[in-house]
Amino acid sequence: MDDSPQEQVPETEAEPQYQAAVVDLLGVLAYGELTAFIRMAVDCDLAPTLALKSAMGQLAATDYANYKTLVEHMRSRGMDPEAAMAPFVAPIAVYHERTKPKGWLEGLVKAYVGEGIAKDFYREMSAYVDEDTRTVMQSALDDEGHAEFVVQIVRDSIHTDRTLAGRLALWGRRLLGEALSQAQAVAVERDAMSALLVGGGVDLGEVGRMFTRLTDNHQRRMSRMGLEA
Amino acid sequence: MDDSPQEQVPETEAEPQYQAAVVDLLGVLAYGELTAFIRMAVDCDLAPTLALKSAMGQLAATDYANYKTLVEHMRSRGMDPEAAMAPFVAPIAVYHERTKPKGWLEGLVKAYVGEGIAKDFYREMSAYVDEDTRTVMQSALDDEGHAEFVVQIVRDSIHTDRTLAGRLALWGRRLLGEALSQAQAVAVERDAMSALLVGGGVDLGEVGRMFTRLTDNHQRRMSRMGLEA
Repeated sequence: MDDSPQEQVPETEAEPQYQAAVVDLLGVLAYGELTAFIRMAVDCDLAPTLALKSAMGQLAATDYANYKTLVEHMRSRGMDPEAAMAPFVAPIAVYHERTKPKGWLEGLVKAYVGEGIAKDFYREMSAYVDEDTRTVMQSALDDEGHAEFVVQIVRDSIHTDRTLAGRLALWGRRLLGEALSQAQAVAVERDAMSALLVGGGVDLGEVGRMFTRLTDNHQRRMSRMGLEA
Repeated sequence: MDDSPQEQVPETEAEPQYQAAVVDLLGVLAYGELTAFIRMAVDCDLAPTLALKSAMGQLAATDYANYKTLVEHMRSRGMDPEAAMAPFVAPIAVYHERTKPKGWLEGLVKAYVGEGIAKDFYREMSAYVDEDTRTVMQSALDDEGHAEFVVQIVRDSIHTDRTLAGRLALWGRRLLGEALSQAQAVAVERDAMSALLVGGGVDLGEVGRMFTRLTDNHQRRMSRMGLEA
């Protein structure tokens, strides 16, 4: 074996700090999906029509399927999924506590915007992990386009109600703020995950550009729904 | 074509009243699964551990998958799933309104006992429908044994708490009573479904024996959990 650059990857993978970062990433992603599943199912209870209940149920069921994929992957790699998820129970609970939707429409916007930001973040992070981890992350991040119906429903709802448009725009800004604030809290707590970026040779400028991409994508989602970001 | 007995089946299937009964059966089964999915996900929010949340989430996700199977089957047969489910929204809402679990443990017992009774009833009904309908009903009635963990959890919980055992036994009796009372209300409202039994040459003695089987199975489930029926 020569020590060409690609041979460095397995060596990095064996490092305890790298492994801790992967466990954290999979843990937070899994617990995020489990919680998104529960929250969406709870909101779906409030949906005014059977068609909406059904579509929101589909979103929830997809979240659960993603959760299951991640848990099975962790088990197959000898990781303890419950231990991996545990550190993220509190920050995710705080996020959901602070962003309780008033009604099913705010619930839908929250799912589209909140999961959108979270998934963009995990997609960015997946650039810094090994192939195996990246594959399972990407498969768990695929919502099969089930969230697309949200865009049309929000556009239709605000079409005749400008007050609602203003209220949902504010709601979207609050969701972004709370998501970034909890992400910040997690970054401070979980050294290994932050080190994946910084220790992986990512400079602070690149971290800044990542946040710009996240907020740009957020604005794009808001504008697709017809809402000011 | 001769008019041997087996040739009668397609003829029966073409009858509008038979078709109405099948639409009703699939509609109530589908809406029951959708509602069970939502209720279980809501209860799962209260579960005290990650392992329980995960197991209850699995139950909920299986209910949704069953719902989806039924809806897809109805669409492929030219039935309108929403129209088929609509008549059952009110009675199922009344059932759930009258049997709101206090806490996740009552939620689990409700899922095991309530879905148990409902599924036994649908299994009985599936004897009176055509092969195609029976196949999709049976596949939607399969919970893949995911509810089995409930038995162990209830046994463990009452082991050290006899007051709880008494309370859950009462709860089980109430669930049976409310389920039968709503089933009765549906039978009065939906002529075609009742006629499937009575018009299908089923005498009242057989209907009585069916109810005996349903309550026997209920008692068996209660006793498996260590509860008096």
